[in-house]
Amino acid sequence: MFRLSLLSRRVPAARLLIRRSLVISRSLATAATAPPSKGPTGVVLLNMGGPSKTSEVYDFLLRLFQDGDLIPLGRFQDKIAKFIAWRRTPKIAHHYAEIGGGSPIRKWSEYQAKEMCKLLDEIAPATAPHLPYVAFRYANPLTEDTMKKMLEDGIKRAVAFTQYPQYSCSTTGSSLNELWKLSEKVDPGRTIKWSVIDRWPTHPGLVRAFSQIIQQQLETYDESVRDDVMLLFSAHSLPMTVVNRGDPYPAEVAATVYAVMTELKFKNPYRLVWQSQVGPQPWLGAQTQNTVTHLVKKGQTDMILIPIAFTSDHIETLHELDIEIIGEAGAEGITRAASLNGHPEFIKALADIVDDHLKNEEVTSKQYPVLCPMCDKDVCKSSRKFFLE
Amino acid sequence: MFRLSLLSRRVPAARLLIRRSLVISRSLATAATAPPSKGPTGVVLLNMGGPSKTSEVYDFLLRLFQDGDLIPLGRFQDKIAKFIAWRRTPKIAHHYAEIGGGSPIRKWSEYQAKEMCKLLDEIAPATAPHLPYVAFRYANPLTEDTMKKMLEDGIKRAVAFTQYPQYSCSTTGSSLNELWKLSEKVDPGRTIKWSVIDRWPTHPGLVRAFSQIIQQQLETYDESVRDDVMLLFSAHSLPMTVVNRGDPYPAEVAATVYAVMTELKFKNPYRLVWQSQVGPQPWLGAQTQNTVTHLVKKGQTDMILIPIAFTSDHIETLHELDIEIIGEAGAEGITRAASLNGHPEFIKALADIVDDHLKNEEVTSKQYPVLCPMCDKDVCKSSRKFFLE
Repeated sequence: MFRLSLLSRRVPAARLLIRRSLVISRSLATAATAPPSKGPTGVVLLNMGGPSKTSEVYDFLLRLFQDGDLIPLGRFQDKIAKFIAWRRTPKIAHHYAEIGGGSPIRKWSEYQAKEMCKLLDEIAPATAPHLPYVAFRYANPLTEDTMKKMLEDGIKRAVAFTQYPQYSCSTTGSSLNELWKLSEKVDPGRTIKWSVIDRWPTHPGLVRAFSQIIQQQLETYDESVRDDVMLLFSAHSLPMTVVNRGDPYPAEVAATVYAVMTELKFKNPYRLVWQSQVGPQPWLGAQTQNTVTHLVKKGQTDMILIPIAFTSDHIETLHELDIEIIGEAGAEGITRAASLNGHPEFIKALADIVDDHLKNEEVTSKQYPVLCPMCDKDVCKSSRKFFLE
Repeated sequence: MFRLSLLSRRVPAARLLIRRSLVISRSLATAATAPPSKGPTGVVLLNMGGPSKTSEVYDFLLRLFQDGDLIPLGRFQDKIAKFIAWRRTPKIAHHYAEIGGGSPIRKWSEYQAKEMCKLLDEIAPATAPHLPYVAFRYANPLTEDTMKKMLEDGIKRAVAFTQYPQYSCSTTGSSLNELWKLSEKVDPGRTIKWSVIDRWPTHPGLVRAFSQIIQQQLETYDESVRDDVMLLFSAHSLPMTVVNRGDPYPAEVAATVYAVMTELKFKNPYRLVWQSQVGPQPWLGAQTQNTVTHLVKKGQTDMILIPIAFTSDHIETLHELDIEIIGEAGAEGITRAASLNGHPEFIKALADIVDDHLKNEEVTSKQYPVLCPMCDKDVCKSSRKFFLE
């Protein structure tokens, strides 16, 4: 086994053949009439990503501020991006140092992708083997490198699977635009045939995983107060300019929250709040920090913060929620629900979502082709054309 | 029967006795062991209301601008309210004239209340007879008059049932504050014991009724384009000051929309948009009118506007959506889904919601006691104390 894994790490094509024959022989054993597999299938988890080491912070910030889909800075985007990244690096690097020297998002994404593919090989032999990939928008492994690796691995069919359950132009939209642009560059012959999982805000497995984690956290409170603990679902906010041009994210986040509360039978009071606002422009509220401060003032000191729009721990959970908001509030009753990370129910949900997607043979959701009503970006039109033609 | 109804209209107590004995004898016939009814139960549909005649417009506007829960104007609230009401009356009266001379909301509310109570008498004999009432915040029948009538009718147990499926301080909150204040005045001895249905955004019956109406509207489009018709769910907007202090309405509206789209199997593209913004302050978007204009420009001329936060037709559907937005857009493919009004599935949902509420013996939802985190109004605290003590 050790030798096999050594070999497979060095020779992707060999690894592929071995996995493929294993899965095919397994499925042949169980169903003699099963059609041959259409695999291999590459499953690529998309995310903005985060710097794994403090030395990667500048590059991460630079790419982030260079992204006109996320932060439109006009024709001097590149120059302004360099300046902002340079100015912000020391403070942000310090934040990463405070959470252990880097973001754990790469570790978690690679783990999720691998475990999800293991499950997929079992439940979806028709598209096996499923090969796990991670493509980050602003950090390693970058989309370009992942795409090159997929071509080396001989992938011809791939699923771009956003790790933002709720769609926003700023996150999933930006990752898919990047995928299109890099495909033009790295794979101009379109060797890889793509389909897209662009949103999954109320998938039953996701909802169940959130509910279980919240339930576990509630059980750390004394029974006498348990049903009165306030559940504060916190999602990354958006500037009002993005909300007002018709980004679907706020409504989809609210859908996740309501589905989780339904699963929890509305036993607790709750609110949806929004974190990580920066700069002088108006952003969507109510603000998480502001809400916590006011609730504490009113005597509501038992509450659980729940990151509802991220699936793995990163700076917004480990630093902003844990250190800045919970740490500074200084009330013992304020805690945070664990992130989904490696939660088995969550991994199972990821596999089920891909399985459904492959079985339905859908290219994107019915929502993805619709541009934000008040937006007219050419890049958004081109990426839709790319995936849908 | 004619005589009976004549008698009952003149002598409420007699009417009550007749209905009560009818229902009790019916339930005794079907189940000899059924316990005696705990009724009569008053079921009061709460709404902001609207002027039934153009001559009522000034009084309606005056009460609306006098409501500090809705539009806080400080210590000169009364004087400013008189001035604004006087200035706006001609234009608003003209709008009501254009939709037939007044709002149909009273007609619909009284119909809904009556039909719902008929169903309740059948499905919930334990709390029968159920007597229908309507209490409007700014128009006839006003809350005070309804409460006096309930006392005359001998009601001792009543359900305050908001007709806003999604809770906002500006609508349901204001109606419940009014109910508390008037109860102190009209019923200081607390003859009537109240409980509250303060929200029901994803009740299956409501979701089914919306879905059926949308499906019917979709069927007016040619099959070749039907699945590409854009569904624009339009809800009354809120000022960002209200959103940012933590009003739960935007998230609950989004929950309704997502539940309806789930029922419709996401076959169509859709967006949640917000209407009726006024004044210079920022309100929550994307704006309905703006969205329609931009979609038409992009060539998306098939769309259905769906009023998702009102249950009956009134000025915002019949004038704003039909005349101002759809009328002015001038594209044949833009239509509106009918309001719920007297839809049988909706009436059944109303009865089921009250039935569940009475059987669960709940006083309010778990959410109602929670004040908006960034709000500290004494009136909100007092009304909660009133209902929950």
